[in-house]
Amino acid sequence: MSKTILITGGARSGKSVIAETMTLGFGKTATYIATADSSDAEMTARIAAHKSRRKAQWTTVEAPLDLAGSLRNTEGKGPRLVDCLTLWLSNLMLSGHDWQAAGRDLAARLPRQSDPVVIVTNEVGGGIVPDNPLAREFRDAAGLLNQWIAEVADEVYLAVAGLPLKVK
Amino acid sequence: MSKTILITGGARSGKSVIAETMTLGFGKTATYIATADSSDAEMTARIAAHKSRRKAQWTTVEAPLDLAGSLRNTEGKGPRLVDCLTLWLSNLMLSGHDWQAAGRDLAARLPRQSDPVVIVTNEVGGGIVPDNPLAREFRDAAGLLNQWIAEVADEVYLAVAGLPLKVK
Amino acid sequence: MSKTILITGGARSGKSVIAETMTLGFGKTATYIATADSSDAEMTARIAAHKSRRKAQWTTVEAPLDLAGSLRNTEGKGPRLVDCLTLWLSNLMLSGHDWQAAGRDLAARLPRQSDPVVIVTNEVGGGIVPDNPLAREFRDAAGLLNQWIAEVADEVYLAVAGLPLKVK
Repeated sequence: MSKTILITGGARSGKSVIAETMTLGFGKTATYIATADSSDAEMTARIAAHKSRRKAQWTTVEAPLDLAGSLRNTEGKGPRLVDCLTLWLSNLMLSGHDWQAAGRDLAARLPRQSDPVVIVTNEVGGGIVPDNPLAREFRDAAGLLNQWIAEVADEVYLAVAGLPLKVK
Repeated sequence: MSKTILITGGARSGKSVIAETMTLGFGKTATYIATADSSDAEMTARIAAHKSRRKAQWTTVEAPLDLAGSLRNTEGKGPRLVDCLTLWLSNLMLSGHDWQAAGRDLAARLPRQSDPVVIVTNEVGGGIVPDNPLAREFRDAAGLLNQWIAEVADEVYLAVAGLPLKVK
Repeated sequence: MSKTILITGGARSGKSVIAETMTLGFGKTATYIATADSSDAEMTARIAAHKSRRKAQWTTVEAPLDLAGSLRNTEGKGPRLVDCLTLWLSNLMLSGHDWQAAGRDLAARLPRQSDPVVIVTNEVGGGIVPDNPLAREFRDAAGLLNQWIAEVADEVYLAVAGLPLKVK
């Protein structure tokens, strides 16, 4: 009955629009779970752009860290869109949380949801190995987290130039 | 009657060779619209390699900025290959042009062409978020431009290790 | 009778696990040809993680440079897994070998193997153009090498979030 969909892709590959369309395919109204921590101007501008695209059909919930709590609180209220996993990971790492435990917990939690969950994430491992050790650590973590969620997802898509390419 | 094909992919993923083959599938002779601004040595070497691969069947036209004009001038002369969109975008941004207006204009113009247009572009958003704000701006712009052109394209391919993976 | 399979993908896209599974699909025991040059701590940790995943079914051979010799020595002993092409290329370039000759030789050699060879490689060209000329040179070389091997491979897969997407 539940359905988990993972949409991955590079920056500006059209992931969010694809995910919004898929989420609204599950119901007339939906919850937008924003993991962004709106602390810098660039990010604030991006969030504003996302918001302007979302109509009255959407209820927005902020979950920079407690994604599990947000899923629990929105159960029974229709489909959820989580945008995005990579920012959530970044928030967990920067605040010293155990991202591996949180990621494993999320993967275990998703198949038990009764309402659909569409999740946006990023491909960050397709470039040259970064000089910066923290950047390497982050891209390794992001790749692992994507694998854990893809494993439990019912469908996985790679966004390419705004188009969803089905991977699972 | 017209056909627009977009070939995207990472650096050295074999996009140009795939695009050349597809373009010559539309006719015995074709026009190569080069957007490269041959101002540095590395780029000049790349262009020379491209040229050496192109046989007598090809007529080369340079269009670092005025892609619309080049499309207009080559209409009725057989298929065109535009290589590549990302360099065109870079030239527009570096010279202070309104790349959004130019990109939207190109997207509107492509479906009205009578001769086929095969376009090469780059995936630049698959790595770690760049430190450099200009690099972030460029990759955002490149991603959006790719989406606009993919939306009007009849076919879209992702080049992987020299092989075309059909996305649309 | 022989079969060459190439698995490409970004960092932490699950390439190695996919490749290990495919290799063991060809036989109960297999040879793991490691191209890693275990000179730094980070790489040593990665190799250890790979080793802990590999069971008694695997025999490990180290081939930081002489991949051709390793293929020759392991012929007739069942399937081989080469992990990975990108590290091999890096070792060749850093030690001043002619990577192009070695790469072309490998591409010529693969179709003549009687036992299957599964090869892991990396997508490194999906980010912003690196500032560093050596990084640009490396990503160009890696892209070309991937194309040469993909051309002679019987099957090519792109790993996305741990899932194999068939390209050829």
